[in-house]
Amino acid sequence: MGIGDVTRPLCRAAVEALKQASDQMGTEEGFHGYGPEQGYAFLRDEIAYYYERTSGVKLFSDEIFISDGAKSDLGNILDIFDIDNVVAVTDPVYPVYVDTNVMAGRKIIKLQANFENGFLPMPTKDLEADIIYLCSPNNPTGAAYTKDQLQKWVDFANAHGSVILFDAAYESFITDENVPRSIYAIEGARSCAIEFCSFSKTAGFTGLRCGYTIVPGGLVRDGIQLRKMWLRRQTTKFNGVAYPVQRAAQACLLDDGHKEIMENIAYYQKNAEVMAKTFSELGWPYTGGKNSPYLWVKCPDEKESWAFFDELLEKASVVCTPGSGFGQNGEGYVRFTSFNTHENTEEAMKRIREFFS
Amino acid sequence: MGIGDVTRPLCRAAVEALKQASDQMGTEEGFHGYGPEQGYAFLRDEIAYYYERTSGVKLFSDEIFISDGAKSDLGNILDIFDIDNVVAVTDPVYPVYVDTNVMAGRKIIKLQANFENGFLPMPTKDLEADIIYLCSPNNPTGAAYTKDQLQKWVDFANAHGSVILFDAAYESFITDENVPRSIYAIEGARSCAIEFCSFSKTAGFTGLRCGYTIVPGGLVRDGIQLRKMWLRRQTTKFNGVAYPVQRAAQACLLDDGHKEIMENIAYYQKNAEVMAKTFSELGWPYTGGKNSPYLWVKCPDEKESWAFFDELLEKASVVCTPGSGFGQNGEGYVRFTSFNTHENTEEAMKRIREFFS
Repeated sequence: MGIGDVTRPLCRAAVEALKQASDQMGTEEGFHGYGPEQGYAFLRDEIAYYYERTSGVKLFSDEIFISDGAKSDLGNILDIFDIDNVVAVTDPVYPVYVDTNVMAGRKIIKLQANFENGFLPMPTKDLEADIIYLCSPNNPTGAAYTKDQLQKWVDFANAHGSVILFDAAYESFITDENVPRSIYAIEGARSCAIEFCSFSKTAGFTGLRCGYTIVPGGLVRDGIQLRKMWLRRQTTKFNGVAYPVQRAAQACLLDDGHKEIMENIAYYQKNAEVMAKTFSELGWPYTGGKNSPYLWVKCPDEKESWAFFDELLEKASVVCTPGSGFGQNGEGYVRFTSFNTHENTEEAMKRIREFFS
Repeated sequence: MGIGDVTRPLCRAAVEALKQASDQMGTEEGFHGYGPEQGYAFLRDEIAYYYERTSGVKLFSDEIFISDGAKSDLGNILDIFDIDNVVAVTDPVYPVYVDTNVMAGRKIIKLQANFENGFLPMPTKDLEADIIYLCSPNNPTGAAYTKDQLQKWVDFANAHGSVILFDAAYESFITDENVPRSIYAIEGARSCAIEFCSFSKTAGFTGLRCGYTIVPGGLVRDGIQLRKMWLRRQTTKFNGVAYPVQRAAQACLLDDGHKEIMENIAYYQKNAEVMAKTFSELGWPYTGGKNSPYLWVKCPDEKESWAFFDELLEKASVVCTPGSGFGQNGEGYVRFTSFNTHENTEEAMKRIREFFS
């Protein structure tokens, strides 16, 4: 239950789109060479429609940048920020936010996430940060900011001139209407937030590599549109995503494909439910599971992450991810994911119930 | 004749490999999620065999890093170099080398390439550079370093502690035995050179995005293996290349696929011959055409690049690329490419002969 990768195969619509585009590439008329660095308009437009449908958010097509994954862009976006910028991340945290900034030599502030604040830290008066990473629904804690909470972050960023780097990689798992799927559903976000999203978890693209980054035209710092800086960065250092992969991504946003990928999401959500039920029965406190593929579980009897990991492995032969790897506040927690099969999830929960109830 | 993209469709072996891998991705057993950030071993091994076959060079598989293209890596590699490092580039130059360093704020030295040195500048005693970009066969000039010339660069780099960033994107166009296809064919290169290569021009992958970077284990600076630094960079900021694309790249190195891609190269080489013949007949001095898809032509009558570009366009309706865009020394030159069809190339040369002879 420690797996961070998806396990459901690629949906039929995506496979068909891949194959059709591959055939095209083998013909003189259908061959596609260098594509636009920002991505093909057919995909950017489809993403814009998706945002309008799912979040009521209107994006201009040229604010959307197709990439080979959110991880790449979350690191590369730092190219357009000054080395002296101060960075705020939550603790626990997705390690990529920290590592990329450590490599660049930036000062990093930790926002304390813990059981008391539901692992959803809020801005404090004394916070001084140029760049603020927020991931909601969160990896690893599964916690998700409500509309009101995100509004406070957006207001803070606008008041302080900070830029929020909003990781929305798990937006498709959101079921709660009060949890925004995009930060642009929040008033004022267009002038302070960059959003990163991906087809990895939404459409099982972990092995195909396609994501997107949104830099709104309204986001201006020192008189410069960050959208234009990012465009310059991408045209200089990036040459776009494979044409067949962009066609496959497009297929996942169209009717048939979208229906298929939502069935996969439902499959994983079912796993999350089974786990949530088990942990509730055992009286193990947790966050996530709802609006998220992750369940972040407090180790019973005040055990440390690795001690509980070992116990689970030895007693139940179940693997999870020790929370201490995600930061100091992760100590005493473990992460479970819903990306396994129904069968394995049921079996793992059965064993956990046997050994721990 | 200004086109920088390939025009021949993807070879059959690559299309088949793409489709087969796409089908696999649609099945539970064949699904591939996150792959190794460094690329799949099946492709890295095949590249190692390719180097042994074509250059007699032995590489370890873990010195080879698969990427989404040489352009990305040529920019991203700078992440492992200090901001204070001094960079040497040739003039004229592929603009990406300059832009990425300007963005990072590094000091840039220009190595003067001109007709006198065959557009192949050599190291001088007073040169002090930490990073030296060499592109051979060269874009835009088509000039290619001989073994002896490259040996002098490698000796210089080893003596001065410089790192050569060697762009070998056009290696498959080399026919001259005295022109190395890899810098590792030169003694001592393993301790001073990083090589960048790509399937873009070799196999028509401009729209599929797949390249590779070689960081030899012997390349150590300040006691640190650069290979390990690059591995860390890639695992932190990159998530690998699409599985079907890596399978397609592999197919292009295997027997049938390789035969097919070499037929495409021969197709372009034929175009280069036709152009070379025309320019020779007209008495227009040029470099390249041999060992390279590019012909770098001195504008007749001491014309400036744009003036000659306009004249070609107006008189012959032929488009080329003005050399002045590649640097000060590019003024007075234009670049022709062999990536067009036979028919268009013949027609363009016919018109040029009509108007200029």
